[in-house]
Amino acid sequence: MATHPANRIPGKQPRWSQRFEGVLHPFIVRFNASIRFDFTLLQEDLDGSVAHGRMLAACGVITAAEAGQIVDGLETIRREAAAGTFRPGVDTEDIHFAVERRLIELVGDVGKKLHTGRSRNDQVGTDLRLWLRGRIDELEILLRRYGQTLLRLAEDHVDTMIPGYTHLQRAQPLSLAHHLLAYVEMTQRDRQRLAQVRQRVNVSPLGAAALAGTPVPIDRRRTAAALGFADIYRNSLDAVSDRDFAVEFLAAASLMMVHLSRLSEEVILWASQEFAFVSLTDRCATGSSLMPQKKNPDVPELVRGKTGRVFGHLQALLTVMKGLPLAYNKDLQEDKEGLFDAVQTTRDCLEAMIILLEEGLRFQPRRLAEAVGSDFANATDVADYLVARGVPFREAYGLVGGLVKACLQEGVLLQDVPLERWQQVHPAFAEDIFTVLQPRQVVAARLSEGGTGFVRVREALEQAKTAFAD
Amino acid sequence: MATHPANRIPGKQPRWSQRFEGVLHPFIVRFNASIRFDFTLLQEDLDGSVAHGRMLAACGVITAAEAGQIVDGLETIRREAAAGTFRPGVDTEDIHFAVERRLIELVGDVGKKLHTGRSRNDQVGTDLRLWLRGRIDELEILLRRYGQTLLRLAEDHVDTMIPGYTHLQRAQPLSLAHHLLAYVEMTQRDRQRLAQVRQRVNVSPLGAAALAGTPVPIDRRRTAAALGFADIYRNSLDAVSDRDFAVEFLAAASLMMVHLSRLSEEVILWASQEFAFVSLTDRCATGSSLMPQKKNPDVPELVRGKTGRVFGHLQALLTVMKGLPLAYNKDLQEDKEGLFDAVQTTRDCLEAMIILLEEGLRFQPRRLAEAVGSDFANATDVADYLVARGVPFREAYGLVGGLVKACLQEGVLLQDVPLERWQQVHPAFAEDIFTVLQPRQVVAARLSEGGTGFVRVREALEQAKTAFAD
Amino acid sequence: MATHPANRIPGKQPRWSQRFEGVLHPFIVRFNASIRFDFTLLQEDLDGSVAHGRMLAACGVITAAEAGQIVDGLETIRREAAAGTFRPGVDTEDIHFAVERRLIELVGDVGKKLHTGRSRNDQVGTDLRLWLRGRIDELEILLRRYGQTLLRLAEDHVDTMIPGYTHLQRAQPLSLAHHLLAYVEMTQRDRQRLAQVRQRVNVSPLGAAALAGTPVPIDRRRTAAALGFADIYRNSLDAVSDRDFAVEFLAAASLMMVHLSRLSEEVILWASQEFAFVSLTDRCATGSSLMPQKKNPDVPELVRGKTGRVFGHLQALLTVMKGLPLAYNKDLQEDKEGLFDAVQTTRDCLEAMIILLEEGLRFQPRRLAEAVGSDFANATDVADYLVARGVPFREAYGLVGGLVKACLQEGVLLQDVPLERWQQVHPAFAEDIFTVLQPRQVVAARLSEGGTGFVRVREALEQAKTAFAD
Amino acid sequence: MATHPANRIPGKQPRWSQRFEGVLHPFIVRFNASIRFDFTLLQEDLDGSVAHGRMLAACGVITAAEAGQIVDGLETIRREAAAGTFRPGVDTEDIHFAVERRLIELVGDVGKKLHTGRSRNDQVGTDLRLWLRGRIDELEILLRRYGQTLLRLAEDHVDTMIPGYTHLQRAQPLSLAHHLLAYVEMTQRDRQRLAQVRQRVNVSPLGAAALAGTPVPIDRRRTAAALGFADIYRNSLDAVSDRDFAVEFLAAASLMMVHLSRLSEEVILWASQEFAFVSLTDRCATGSSLMPQKKNPDVPELVRGKTGRVFGHLQALLTVMKGLPLAYNKDLQEDKEGLFDAVQTTRDCLEAMIILLEEGLRFQPRRLAEAVGSDFANATDVADYLVARGVPFREAYGLVGGLVKACLQEGVLLQDVPLERWQQVHPAFAEDIFTVLQPRQVVAARLSEGGTGFVRVREALEQAKTAFAD
Repeated sequence: MATHPANRIPGKQPRWSQRFEGVLHPFIVRFNASIRFDFTLLQEDLDGSVAHGRMLAACGVITAAEAGQIVDGLETIRREAAAGTFRPGVDTEDIHFAVERRLIELVGDVGKKLHTGRSRNDQVGTDLRLWLRGRIDELEILLRRYGQTLLRLAEDHVDTMIPGYTHLQRAQPLSLAHHLLAYVEMTQRDRQRLAQVRQRVNVSPLGAAALAGTPVPIDRRRTAAALGFADIYRNSLDAVSDRDFAVEFLAAASLMMVHLSRLSEEVILWASQEFAFVSLTDRCATGSSLMPQKKNPDVPELVRGKTGRVFGHLQALLTVMKGLPLAYNKDLQEDKEGLFDAVQTTRDCLEAMIILLEEGLRFQPRRLAEAVGSDFANATDVADYLVARGVPFREAYGLVGGLVKACLQEGVLLQDVPLERWQQVHPAFAEDIFTVLQPRQVVAARLSEGGTGFVRVREALEQAKTAFAD
Repeated sequence: MATHPANRIPGKQPRWSQRFEGVLHPFIVRFNASIRFDFTLLQEDLDGSVAHGRMLAACGVITAAEAGQIVDGLETIRREAAAGTFRPGVDTEDIHFAVERRLIELVGDVGKKLHTGRSRNDQVGTDLRLWLRGRIDELEILLRRYGQTLLRLAEDHVDTMIPGYTHLQRAQPLSLAHHLLAYVEMTQRDRQRLAQVRQRVNVSPLGAAALAGTPVPIDRRRTAAALGFADIYRNSLDAVSDRDFAVEFLAAASLMMVHLSRLSEEVILWASQEFAFVSLTDRCATGSSLMPQKKNPDVPELVRGKTGRVFGHLQALLTVMKGLPLAYNKDLQEDKEGLFDAVQTTRDCLEAMIILLEEGLRFQPRRLAEAVGSDFANATDVADYLVARGVPFREAYGLVGGLVKACLQEGVLLQDVPLERWQQVHPAFAEDIFTVLQPRQVVAARLSEGGTGFVRVREALEQAKTAFAD
Repeated sequence: MATHPANRIPGKQPRWSQRFEGVLHPFIVRFNASIRFDFTLLQEDLDGSVAHGRMLAACGVITAAEAGQIVDGLETIRREAAAGTFRPGVDTEDIHFAVERRLIELVGDVGKKLHTGRSRNDQVGTDLRLWLRGRIDELEILLRRYGQTLLRLAEDHVDTMIPGYTHLQRAQPLSLAHHLLAYVEMTQRDRQRLAQVRQRVNVSPLGAAALAGTPVPIDRRRTAAALGFADIYRNSLDAVSDRDFAVEFLAAASLMMVHLSRLSEEVILWASQEFAFVSLTDRCATGSSLMPQKKNPDVPELVRGKTGRVFGHLQALLTVMKGLPLAYNKDLQEDKEGLFDAVQTTRDCLEAMIILLEEGLRFQPRRLAEAVGSDFANATDVADYLVARGVPFREAYGLVGGLVKACLQEGVLLQDVPLERWQQVHPAFAEDIFTVLQPRQVVAARLSEGGTGFVRVREALEQAKTAFAD
Repeated sequence: MATHPANRIPGKQPRWSQRFEGVLHPFIVRFNASIRFDFTLLQEDLDGSVAHGRMLAACGVITAAEAGQIVDGLETIRREAAAGTFRPGVDTEDIHFAVERRLIELVGDVGKKLHTGRSRNDQVGTDLRLWLRGRIDELEILLRRYGQTLLRLAEDHVDTMIPGYTHLQRAQPLSLAHHLLAYVEMTQRDRQRLAQVRQRVNVSPLGAAALAGTPVPIDRRRTAAALGFADIYRNSLDAVSDRDFAVEFLAAASLMMVHLSRLSEEVILWASQEFAFVSLTDRCATGSSLMPQKKNPDVPELVRGKTGRVFGHLQALLTVMKGLPLAYNKDLQEDKEGLFDAVQTTRDCLEAMIILLEEGLRFQPRRLAEAVGSDFANATDVADYLVARGVPFREAYGLVGGLVKACLQEGVLLQDVPLERWQQVHPAFAEDIFTVLQPRQVVAARLSEGGTGFVRVREALEQAKTAFAD
């Protein structure tokens, strides 16, 4: 159970030190303090305290006038922070003490009543959940914007074709829109996942007090409602020691980074001289004074690299939580910095990828067309052509395989083979085989649901636009 | 795109090797093969193939008679596996080839039609999702049993008290049931999380083919329905390259292990000679021939230790996925072993903890009662006593703090202080202060929602029983 | 290859932008910039540049006068930084540009010659290695101080006994010094490991240029010697893309944290009311105004918690490095923040543990003596007593086991059993059995090398004092 | 302290169960047992026991005849294992009990004397270190073979050029040997690191007994010498609870995998149709029956994927160790499976990469030559040409940058610019500029130590051959 902050008034040693032989070692003061990073939670700490103070009055624990004074004091602190004049030092230990101390300076002894029926343990849990809920809501907006950006790009490129790869080997041509829509699907899952994480973030621990609840006649539902929480924790021990919600967020953020890293890898490949599927513009890429042809895909490289740190934060918090006995332990102070950084990282990476997609790259249609037409990705369709004309598929496959092999040796493509030769392979081949061979036809034919057939892609695009509409 | 298995008939080199100068290096055959571990997916592979074969007939791609032969062949394999006679070797590469090869042996050329309109890429994704869905359903049952076990224990111990800790320092006495209910809450979240992961597991990739969909007129909704999938993947590239569901499961499993490791740590502490809150029975603990008083809490230690491997599997898969370009890459073969082991580990640990709670430990009421009554965890309640009698709380807190300090120096507890001395501290103290000092009263008074007050605990117990009912 | 900084003069767009249609998006400028954290490397960047400038003159690439001007300019920047007037903004991108830009402002065009024959790729690698080498040297001093602190404590407690545990069950009594010496051994390994990591840190990449070396007639051995490097990288590609040394450091730091977390866990247990082996002083622990008996072991809890972040940084960097093609990629920019934080964390945790051991805790001899004398940890020694008197060990073990069992049922200890009863068990028992039963004798008898026998412990102490001498 | 195995004779309940009300739950028997995986340690367990038995005789604890019987029994077990007849079941719990039980069956009561003066805690530590030491020695041989393979390939390709990349953008041409030598350097560090890890593996814990040493007059130096250990643990608690050596190995293995994954990524890129720098042969790649032109780089993909599991094992063990109190805890049983798998994985991946490099890929000189000659990677050298002719480098750089820009717009390369135009740019240009522009000259000029200049590469190759000689 934490020290009661009422006794930590400015300029004095804490009261408990009366019994102590000495005082905290100055290094330990700094080592223990979290104010350097939990100042981030200021707004949420004020919100929580306003709600708690008003509830205390509503429950008759303090008077309405006292609550009024407290709320006024808290709002003064908010204004001071906005003006940059509220800058608590390391001696305040954490944001909760810092606010309480300033409140008491501002409104006097009545400020000391605010901490009735709560503890720093449930208070910090409340602050962190409120903060994360806000950030999740911002991320949802960013994810939607990111999806919309992908969709706009996809809309421009339904008819653009790009080689589809497995094992980084060209397999079958695709509509570029279809390729981009795969990332839209991942984003859709990210949104769904984040919404589900939010359900477990949005539960109020306030009123669990140090660990056991309180004899003070408080109303936890009232503070929860005031703060927009959908529910309250049902068990006080669990309320103060649960960090599942933070781990869950980090896992969801890790998956967002997985998705961003995959697209980043592709953009890096596409921007290489060997692929040359995209050119990078000056909005996102830096060049060299001496070699103006060279532009570095810094943005996707950095996004790919930043994936590591989010995975690391996930591992770090899991490690912290492993084997911790109930209820609150100081180890839990380590839940914040990684979470803050993970939020900032995913936000920055989404923003950077939106800019990259919108202004930073241009697909190179000529090069893509060339790439799509220069391989044997149409061989499967030739076999299907024979099968549709009654040739047993196994025979069909064998015939085509043989032809491809011959072409490879001669250095020609299937579309270069004259009709007579086709007909030597099998008499069922007719002039229309040349249509089948065209990459555009190869793509168009894949009409199974979710396939790359242009018709399917247009349908998928429309559905996704609805799902990502504001 | 994977090699077409039709060409991998028994006893022959694959057809593509005709063009090859050599054959696969024997070490590489073993290195590439996944049959050693993906044999685990046999039932699901058969289920998927049965559904696919029937769909092909329904869509007119093969005849009903052909489908019948295929399904018969597949069910024969199922029986052979049950009888232990289906034991594919490393030369079959993976479970999909192994089944197809055997099918062709059993039913002849018609077996080669089964792979029409699908690829190993969507097939393995289907198998893995079906398998994991089944395991999640089993885990849900185990989680419920685990919760019920905790609830039965809690029901026996509403009136048993146990010290509540923060920082592993005694803070306030608790109802032991309240303590156990904290773990019930964690389990409830585990169930909720697992149910949400299941939503994303239960989506069919079948029919995405290698990466782009297929020109074969298949019906993906029909196979999805036959296999009990709630939805289908909307994008074929995403369908074959998504492993979010596996990462999500590993993250959920990691949190289950966090929870189990926390209870394990507590049991280990409780079973130490110093705590002695529980004694271990012979059902779960091994002893020493020479020191019969000594029993080792092997089970919770092992559970705590096994937490590491589940975290490790999560990191492993995240690492695999980072930066993979679309669509299928062989790296994805590494998704299975960690997932299989994580399922087995969480299942075993839940089972072991159920046995431990049911048969392996006994709370020691005498020792617990002694522990609860031998500290100053009631000091807060004394202050509240004065506050309720009109003493300003800050004055009240100061008076009690002083008295506790004096007691500490004298080596007595608050309950040992005679009434006269109480009244010297403050005249408001009366005979009823001794009731307030009793741990039972300290617990009972914490009536805030979610608090440890006995009344609240009974309510919480009833609610949880409903939530965990079969 | 990075942009040549000479073209990034203040107040101007970079030269390469002449060809660009636009300018970098302002968000991307911030996203790409590393100056916020790599300003940490300022001293090392200046050191590296001084050495490079002097070498260029020695090799005749620039004149001695030019080198003099450059070095003067660099030292001016060092003074400006000390005075707090050198504060580069986000537009300088990184510390290398920031320094070069300021140098050119200070010394004019000659400043532009400094970058001859090097690139940011080898420059940042040089800076980072120099920085880490310095931090390793500081950590070595801290590790030695930490070991010395443990040794002083051990010296005070050779004769103090403490229960030894396996499975957190009391097993055999130990000399407390022996227990503390186990941590000294871990520290010794940490030092050895760090010294070996330092070997791979202390290798110069300078002169590898962007990736391929340079046609400029530089002397890499000269800069390496000037900067105190023991060797140079033998391959330019490896030189600019290797981050093994940083991963290795993070692995070594993770093991340091493992060790600190183990001692932390023990201190937390020892400080609990149940163990009560140590009391916490006011130098490291905060108390509660209302419950003065309660002090929280914040320091070891925080150390234990901070273990997670160091593991996380290790995982993060491994993830960054996985699968990166040669040579330099922007992902490598992500090597710094985690490394910086890991250094700071291990340093702080060592410092905090030193203070905790020196001023923050006091072993409680009475309680330890009581703990050591109140169990059956001496049973093994009774059996050995009989064996030494010719009783076959198996018979001896059986007899003692039976006696212990009887004692347990009667609630007495072996030392409470009267001599007659001993002799009923076996006539070989004589009066001296009561000496054997004393914990002090149990400890003293374990004279195998590395054992807890007091004689052995004193020897070990002396050896360790030599190993940790300044 | 573990149960004394002497009491676990076949077909009987352990003796301690006499006092127990019940017997171990059958599920818990399986849950606790490690025999499934620690059977791997059989040879080392036998070796350790032989050494221990002989030492006991040498120290007079048992007779020479008894030691002879014991050693004979142990060697019989070794032969039984070789013949496949020694197959202990789950009821033997672990390899140590399994061997001891069988020994007692074979040689009778004398077998029960073997465990004198040791415990399973120091025994398992001994086995694991012996096992790992053996595997490290095998890995050293494999690493050397891998390096030799790289060197043979490098030797063939000193004169082959390949584009050098930064940010996956072509930067400067390289000798392909130089590129391969970068991996040789990484391998050299892997060897050095492994040798240093081995130092800490090769320390004997035997004789530390359960945790405190033993009163039995053993000679730890004798067993250490017999088993080839270079040193003994100096502290018994540390000896039984240290797993640094396993973590260190996993960290070293993780770096090996980082290196292998980087080369894998490059091979995957090189084998793509876009790069086409290598062709894959039939020894390592599988093809498609329909698309014979397509071969999948399964081996490097799998190696890249397997990197994740090794990282995961490292995190897993770190997680296990965090915060474990001294000395032995059952959690430590979790040290084995991850370690075993990491050894197997690195071994397999090295083997697979050796085969890939030796038989699985062929560099495509024509394509490489084409790639190297088709960009502006020679621009820097033009500037250096002018500088060497007295043009201030800044003016030189500006002139070349302008020319490159013009070439880009016109779609020509520098080598296509006629001499007159060069001389319009600057009169210092003469006929020899065309030599400077040749990629071969660009490479040759980089003569700084460690650079890609052919002369340097040949030197580096010779040095590396010495370092990797058998």
